[in-house]
Formats: sequence, C-alpha cells, structure tokens
Amino acid sequence: MFRNIHRFLIGRPLLNWEISHEKLPKWKALSIFSSDAISSVGYGPEQIALALAVPGLLAYGYLPMVVAAVLFLLAIVTLSYVQVARANPGGGGSYSVAIHNLGELPALVAAASLFADYVLTVAVSISSGTDALTSAFPALIGHEVAIDLIILFCVLMLINLRGVRESSNVFVWPTYLFAGGMIILIAVGVYNAFTGSAPILPHESTVRQNFDAAILVLLLRAFANGCSSMTGVEAISNGVPMFKAPEASNAIKTTYFMSGLLGSILAGISFLILHYHIMPQENVTMLSLLTETVFGRSWFYYFIQITTMMILYLAANTSYNGLPPLLSILAKDKYMPRYLSFRGERLSYSNGIVLLSILAGILIWVFNGEVEHLISLYAIGVFLSFTIAQTGLVVYWRREKSSHWRARAFINALGAIITGIVVLIIAEAKFFYGAWIVLIFIPIMVFIFKKIHSHYADMSDQLHLPLDGPNLFEAPIDSKNLVLVTIASPTILVAQTIRYAKTISNNISILYVATDQEEAERVQKKWNACNTGLPLTTILSDFRLIIQPILDYISQMVKQKNPNDYITVIIPEFETRKWWHRFLHNQTGWLLRTLLILRNDVIVTTMPFHLKK
Amino acid sequence: MFRNIHRFLIGRPLLNWEISHEKLPKWKALSIFSSDAISSVGYGPEQIALALAVPGLLAYGYLPMVVAAVLFLLAIVTLSYVQVARANPGGGGSYSVAIHNLGELPALVAAASLFADYVLTVAVSISSGTDALTSAFPALIGHEVAIDLIILFCVLMLINLRGVRESSNVFVWPTYLFAGGMIILIAVGVYNAFTGSAPILPHESTVRQNFDAAILVLLLRAFANGCSSMTGVEAISNGVPMFKAPEASNAIKTTYFMSGLLGSILAGISFLILHYHIMPQENVTMLSLLTETVFGRSWFYYFIQITTMMILYLAANTSYNGLPPLLSILAKDKYMPRYLSFRGERLSYSNGIVLLSILAGILIWVFNGEVEHLISLYAIGVFLSFTIAQTGLVVYWRREKSSHWRARAFINALGAIITGIVVLIIAEAKFFYGAWIVLIFIPIMVFIFKKIHSHYADMSDQLHLPLDGPNLFEAPIDSKNLVLVTIASPTILVAQTIRYAKTISNNISILYVATDQEEAERVQKKWNACNTGLPLTTILSDFRLIIQPILDYISQMVKQKNPNDYITVIIPEFETRKWWHRFLHNQTGWLLRTLLILRNDVIVTTMPFHLKK
Repeated sequence: MFRNIHRFLIGRPLLNWEISHEKLPKWKALSIFSSDAISSVGYGPEQIALALAVPGLLAYGYLPMVVAAVLFLLAIVTLSYVQVARANPGGGGSYSVAIHNLGELPALVAAASLFADYVLTVAVSISSGTDALTSAFPALIGHEVAIDLIILFCVLMLINLRGVRESSNVFVWPTYLFAGGMIILIAVGVYNAFTGSAPILPHESTVRQNFDAAILVLLLRAFANGCSSMTGVEAISNGVPMFKAPEASNAIKTTYFMSGLLGSILAGISFLILHYHIMPQENVTMLSLLTETVFGRSWFYYFIQITTMMILYLAANTSYNGLPPLLSILAKDKYMPRYLSFRGERLSYSNGIVLLSILAGILIWVFNGEVEHLISLYAIGVFLSFTIAQTGLVVYWRREKSSHWRARAFINALGAIITGIVVLIIAEAKFFYGAWIVLIFIPIMVFIFKKIHSHYADMSDQLHLPLDGPNLFEAPIDSKNLVLVTIASPTILVAQTIRYAKTISNNISILYVATDQEEAERVQKKWNACNTGLPLTTILSDFRLIIQPILDYISQMVKQKNPNDYITVIIPEFETRKWWHRFLHNQTGWLLRTLLILRNDVIVTTMPFHLKK
Repeated sequence: MFRNIHRFLIGRPLLNWEISHEKLPKWKALSIFSSDAISSVGYGPEQIALALAVPGLLAYGYLPMVVAAVLFLLAIVTLSYVQVARANPGGGGSYSVAIHNLGELPALVAAASLFADYVLTVAVSISSGTDALTSAFPALIGHEVAIDLIILFCVLMLINLRGVRESSNVFVWPTYLFAGGMIILIAVGVYNAFTGSAPILPHESTVRQNFDAAILVLLLRAFANGCSSMTGVEAISNGVPMFKAPEASNAIKTTYFMSGLLGSILAGISFLILHYHIMPQENVTMLSLLTETVFGRSWFYYFIQITTMMILYLAANTSYNGLPPLLSILAKDKYMPRYLSFRGERLSYSNGIVLLSILAGILIWVFNGEVEHLISLYAIGVFLSFTIAQTGLVVYWRREKSSHWRARAFINALGAIITGIVVLIIAEAKFFYGAWIVLIFIPIMVFIFKKIHSHYADMSDQLHLPLDGPNLFEAPIDSKNLVLVTIASPTILVAQTIRYAKTISNNISILYVATDQEEAERVQKKWNACNTGLPLTTILSDFRLIIQPILDYISQMVKQKNPNDYITVIIPEFETRKWWHRFLHNQTGWLLRTLLILRNDVIVTTMPFHLKK
C-alpha cells in the first residue's frame, strides 16, 4: 500500500547508468539557467521601491539612480562570470573555485553563503510567485503560506525526488512566455507614456534637491534591496558542462544574452513604475499594479500574472539543481554528513532535496511568507559568494598565465572589489533588517563544516585496520563468552532463550530480579521444577526497580571478567501481534536493550518470540 | 543532575514495609474523605441556577424545588452507602461490589464509570477551585487554564508521586475551615434576611403558575446539574478499613455526619442565593457573589474564596487516592496494562498517577477550563456506578441473609431504582450537553477492558511452559548457529566483530552490499589483504539500496537452514562520543537492527564500538 503510493509519486527506481548526459542547445540552456535571474524582475524593482517609498513620494525620484547602479553592477557581475565560465569548464560554482584556488576557509565561507542563498532562493521565489497569484486572485489572500508550502512540498520536492530531467521542455516555455510578456508590457507601456494616452498623474515632487545623509542611507538600502535582482547570474557558469560544444563559448554567449535580457526588462519595468507612479501596496505586487494600469484586468493581465508566478516557482526549482549537488560535493569532501552524497533510487540526491525543502519550508513558515523580510537575508550571501569566486579566479589567472591573463585577472579583480564593496554596503544598510542573521549563520556554518570534517577524520583514524602486526581477525585462545540471561519467570520463551545460550557458550548465568520475597520463592520453586541444569541468581530489589539491579550485576561481571572475555546479554523479547498490545507490556526489555547498547563492554543479543494471538 | 532534581521533587525511594497502616479517628476521616462531597457546594448550586437562569428570572423560583429533590436524593444515597460500608468492610467501591456480586460485565461498567468520574472529578474540582480564585482576584482572569495545569502537574501530580500520606494534617484543616466559613456565611445571611437588613430586591416574578412541559425539561436539566453535588458521597464507604475500630460503625457515623453537613450547607446556600437573587455571571462564581453580598469585600470574603479554592483542589486530590488503586486492582485482574499495578519507588502507584494527571490535563485543555461543560459529563457516570453498587448489594444481602437483611436489601433496592432513574433523567436531560460522550465512553472502555483481558489470557497460554514432556531447556544435537556479519568495509570494528563471531560459531558468512562495481572491487581487494580466513559475499545493489538486499539474503538463509538451526545476525555498531555526531552517520545499522528484531526467525546481536574522539 505505502509502497504503491511511493511508486506512484516517486516512480520506479533507476539503475546507475540511466543518469542523464544530454547536452543542451543555447536556446534551451538560456531558459533553464536563467529563470532564477530573470524571475527576479518579479520582486527586484518592488524591493527598491519599498525602500524608497517609506518617506512618501519624496525619495521616489531616486529610483532611476538606484536602478542605474544595479544595472552597472549587473554588467560587472556578468563580465566576471563570463570569466568563471571560461576558467572553470568543469562546472562547480564558488565553492569549487575557492577550494581549488584559495584554500579551505574561503571555500567554506562560499559554501555557507551558497547554502544560505539556495535555501533563501526557494523561500523568496515561492513567496513571490504566490504573491503574483494572490495579486490576480484576491480571494486567495490569507492563504499564502498554505499555498507556498503546497508548492514547496507537493510540487517542487516531489518532482525533484522523481528527478525530472533539467532538459525537460516543461522548464523551457515559462521563461520565454514570461520574457515575451514583459517585452510586450514594456513596449505598450512606453508607447502609451510617450503618446500621452497614459492616465493623468499627480505633479512630481520638486524637493529633490535636498540631498543629505538620511537620503544616502535610504539610497543604499534601496540599492541593497535591488541587488537581490542579481541572484542567479552565476547559474550558467555552474552549468557549463551541460552546453553543446564548444561549451565555454556557448555558455558565454548565453550569459551575455541573459544579462542583456534581465537588464532590459529591469530598466523597462523601473521606467514604467516611475512614470505611472506605482506605489507599493499591501497584498498586490507592483508588477500586478503596473500591468493593470497599462492593460486593465484584461486576459493579458492574467497572462502576465500567471507567467510571473510560473517563472518564480521555476526559479525556486533552480535551487534544487544547485544545492543538492553542492551538498553532495561537501559531503564527499567530508564537510557534510556522508548520506547527503548518496543518490536515491531515482538517482537524485534525495536527502539533499528533502533537507532543502524542510529548511525553505521553515523559513516560509517563520517569516509567514512575507517576501520583503526574506529578501533582507538574501543579497548578502549572494554577493559574498560572488566576491569569493572572483577572488579565486584572480588567483587562478595568475597561476595559469593563459592568453590575456592580465586582462582577465583585472576584470575579476574589479568584480571582486566591487562585489566586496556591495557586501559591505548591504551588511551596513540592512544589518538590522536581517543581514545579521546571515552574518551569524555563515561563521556558525563554517564552524559546523570544520567540526564535521574533524569528526570524520577522527573516526577514520579509529576505525583504521592495521594490516601489519598480529591478525586481528583471530580470537585469543583464552577468550571466553560469558552469557547472561535475564528472566521474569520461567516461560517457554525463557526455555527457547536458554537453548540458544547453550549453543553459544558454556558459561551461562540466569538472573532474576524479584520485587518481593514471596514472589521470589515462587519463581525459585518453579525454576527448580524446570530441570534446566543452571542455577538461578535472584536479586531482591528493595525499591521495586528492575533495570538498575541488572545493570549493577552486569557492571560486577565486567569488573570480574578476564580482559579477553566477552559478556553477552541475551534479552528475550516478544513481539505482539497487534500494535496496541505493545502498550500492555512493560517496556523493560526494550529499555534494557537500549541502555546496554550504549555501553561498550557488553554484547546485546535479542531473542525474538512472536505471539501468534 | 537529573537524578538530584528527581530526588528533590519525588523524595528518596521507600522500602516495601514502609507502607502506611495508620488508623484514622472520625474527626480526621471526616475531613479527609468528605472534601470531594462538601466541596461540591462550590459549584453545585451554581449549576442548578445556570440551568434555571437560561430563560431569565422566570424559572428561578423553582430553585427550592430542585434543591429539595437533590437533598432527597442525597438522603437516599447516604442510606444506601451506609449499607455499602456495612456489607463491604474490606473497602473497594462499586467495582469490587459488582465483581463479587454481579459478575464481570456490571463490574466493568462500574469500573468504566468510575474511571470517567475520577478523571472528571480532578478536572471539575481544579477548574472550580481556580474559578474561586479568579472571582476574588480578577487580574487572573484569562489565565485559568494555565493555573489549572500548574496546580494539576506541579502540585497534585507531584505530591501524589511523593506519596504524601492521606492522614497528613495538611488535608484536615481546609475542610473544617471551609465548612466553618460556610456555616458563618449561612448564619449571617439568614439573620440578615430575616431582620431585613438585606439589600432591596426587585419584585419576585408572579408568573410561576404557568407550569408546562418546557419547564419540566428545564427542571430535569437543573436537577441533573444538581446531582453533581452528590459525587464523593461514596468515598467513606471505600475507605472503611482506614477507620479506627469498630470500623464499620465509625464509618457509618461519619457518613451520616458528612451528608448532614453537605445537605445543610447546600440548603443554606440555595436559600441565600434565592433570597438575594444572585444570578450567574461571567467570570465570577455565585458563591463569590453571595459572600460579597453578605459581607462585602472584607477579609471574610477572601477567607471564603481561599478556603473554597483549597477544598476544591483537595477534592481533586481525592481522585488520586481513588483512581490509581482502582487501576491497580483492574491491572491485577488483567483488565488494564500490568504496569498500572506496580508501586513506584515511593510506594505510590506512579503510573496511575501520571495517567490520571495527563487525562485530566487533556480534559481541562480541551474544554478550556470551563466547568459547566465538564459537569455535563460528570453526573451520569457517578450515578451509574451508584446504581451498580446498590444492585450488587441487593444480591449480597440476599446471599448473606445476615440480620435485618430484608430491610437492608430493601433500602439498597430503593437506592438502586432511584439512582437508576436519575441515570435515565440525566442521560435524557443532558444528552446533547455532553452526556453522550460518557455514554459512548463507557461501552468503549468496557470493550477495551475485555480486549486487554483476552490478550493477557492468550499470552499466558502461549508462554506457558509445559513441565512434563521433553526438557525444553536442552538444545537438539543437530542444532547449528549460522552467523551473518554485515560489513561496509574492513575496519577494526569488523575485525572485532569477527573475533567474537568465531567464539560463538563455526558457520560465519560475511556480507557486503556494494552500490557500484569499482567500490566492490576495492573492498574485495582490501578484504583479501586482511587474511581473515573467511570468504566475502558481495551483492551489487542495482538501485543503491543497502537494507533490502541484506533482508533478501537473510530470507534466503532462513529458507535453506535446517529447522533446528539458529541464524544470528551480528550488527557492528559504533556509538559516537557526542550526541550530534550521530547525525553524521547513516542509520543503516540502527534501521537494520530494528527491522530484524521485528522478524521471529533471526537473532540479532549488537557489537558495540565506542569512538573515543
């Protein structure tokens, strides 16, 4: 039953060789890798506006300035990542670049940042996608978190556990539909703006000249928010091996095209928001307000909202292509629990997928699905990993000394410096808005990585089998096996246990703990009648405890035994036929087993007996 | 650390002979056994008034009629229970009476009713006690449930786990203080009423003559509510052995005195409520309103509120003296899980005490500490167990034929009939107000009792050791022990495991499950280098599963073995030094152990290895 549901949801298991090695053409790669970056149009401009709208219309005129800064940064980051694609045709991202070029600590910082980012990408993209949906269908307002979690666990987690191929066409059309919709929106909006058919607007504020420090703080905060649009630019450089040959060159062309598209849409949308004086509102996204302003609630409005929702959900999906492989690399390098490196029965990294889903789910739940709170956490990790990757490449170019290496190193150095400055700006501007969480999270995560690493190293030392020296697989001649059987009264189960004990040892002790004298005498009498050939040791437990006297007795045995002797405790245990019957019995056997397994000086053997009725 | 806290809260363990056998004088017994009954004055009249107040002042004049009916019933029940004390000087209550005189089914019905009642007594008494408190200190309103649960778990459960002696003076003075306070309140109130110094009142309604069916329903409901005052009358008859000699005669005198006291207070309070036209109000008890009307917010008002609170909490405590022993009797008769019959280290029935606390806590939490909802559930079980006890006594008198047996049987028969009618009235009047819950609970509980009983019977059949026939403690000569060791790679832990395996068997198989071919070859090579003298069986797992191939291999072994052979699976298991290290390892060993223990055809042995770093 459970098996069938499981099969239906997850699909049949796959053999190792069934792993996909398909190569992608550029048009397909663009849509697959760029959904994360391009979808950020769905929340990026809004985030800038939110920061500027706080003091009313006053600071609103600064929108173009902030957008220009963001676009400039986008250009720098794009150029830098073109270099990454060139330098690192094996794929792998910031962590790989750093571990090969900068050493362990920067690599772990990058890994921690990426870890935070991937989780945040899922949370932010899903929340934003749902915002696009509820903007179009206000009846859904108030159920955002539920929708988020359904999309997360019942759609994204499930399809990724199934391991849908990245190359599936399902992932191709939402990106193009969304980009096409945006272009039409911008074209019509700009045409209306210049032909004057736009609605009548309030006069623009003229107080713009009063530029002071408070405004600067505001602008930096708006810029920091806007930087969230830049996430996902690195996706192509991580996926170089999936391109058709020549891989690097195709990847670079696709990167340029993607950044161009992203930049244009960002600029266009920002222009329209400014022109139509769209102000952030509760429960409706600015993109929705803008589309409504330009087209009214026509079919095209719904088309934009639905494609926005889809591309955002798709963007969340890119984290599923990113984090589980990263965790798997970290696990292979022994910085993460080993089971994160195993592929599940469908060849996907199922443990990583589940972990990502749970973490993102917790974030959505804790922040109640409100995107703006999550975005505060977002940009800093992205730019930290950008900075590390760029720095790593500078080292790489200096070492490789390939053609144009000076120019390339320069570009990456510039990228590293600028993205490093952005990290500082964001940390400063958004510190109290959640950036501190990431700034605490990263060192803690690095600490955990290192702790895990040293634990695995310790363990492999301790488990190492020296092949020279005496043969450790031969028992010493004087080694005896002292068997202890604990009983509650002589039953058929005890008889069965003692039969087995006799096959594994000649040293058998039988222990019985009595809680009162009469009972002790009754059991002793019955034991004598059994003719077992073994003496019964009875302990009268003063305080009616059962387990403690047994543990004390075992400790005594351990003290008296020879160093080469084993102590085996056989615990008779019956399994009940119905689950609730279990509650009708003392859990003494189970408890004793659990406590004894925690000791390193006794071997615990469980003798099963199944009740048939 | 935990041990010290435990010792501090619960106290040192006690030896068997330290159990108390103190005999009580009447004045002490009265206060100890009657807190449940007398405390019901704290909510009984209010419950009647609540039922009558629904249609405004109209039905309010019927209060005396209902109170009179309740007092009449009290007299009947008292007379009946005097007979119980006489017939059953060994103590034990309705269940004991029924099992000795009526057979299994009535006894189980009585047990189920008592079970429900004891739990409800705790919930109702604590909620009412807290109501008395919040009436006096309105600042506490809104925190009732929290106060209830603190009293329940941090006070009542804890002192009962410590096993405070019933005879402690702590339990004596609240009852007398409360009774004394009530008598003063009634005396002063009645004096004021007749000397005319009472406040001016609205005119009484004159519409009283319109008596119809709707009024009858109302009256029955009020009567049903009022019957809740009768709970606890049976307490003395259950505690006969604790009285000083002559036990029965002293118990009977005490019963009369208690009922007299209860009846007088009930009558007096009802008179005052009627006279001063006290109406039920939100958040303030009627007793509080009444005391305030008579005395104002003087120190005497607070005295009454505090003693009311204390006697109600004390009444809750009486269930702790009642239910755990009842559960222990049921457990000894094999109708309840056996561990409910064990005395804890302080000689109290700790499992029963914890169970009672949890159930009462759930009730309080689910009903949000609102007494009137709980009382609906209350009275029916009480009267059902009254009826069964009385019927049992009729059978008893007929059998014993002691002096005056006809008169005694007549009294009990009358009691049985009247309380039986009351059961029907309550079931009818309060069916939709919660009585249905009890009416469903009782048959379910009886079903559970019977199921448990038959499970224990089945089990004892299956575990029974036949002492004639062949000696079951001797293993057949042809019995072999086939040992299987599963490994992940040859480590020092594997070496240790195989050394042990060699001491318990000559038939050792080593199983290794590989997830890919390369790894398989690497492990095989290392194995060969180890010089173990044992062949390695490698299974290549197509779908990267580890556990399933092992289980399949074991099933294969089970099929091929001789009937007398044992299969022992040794699972090497390392314990990590820090708890969180556990998460860094696959739980394969643990999972395998758990799954194998569920089988009845393999013996599972756990080989411990403790990591030291």
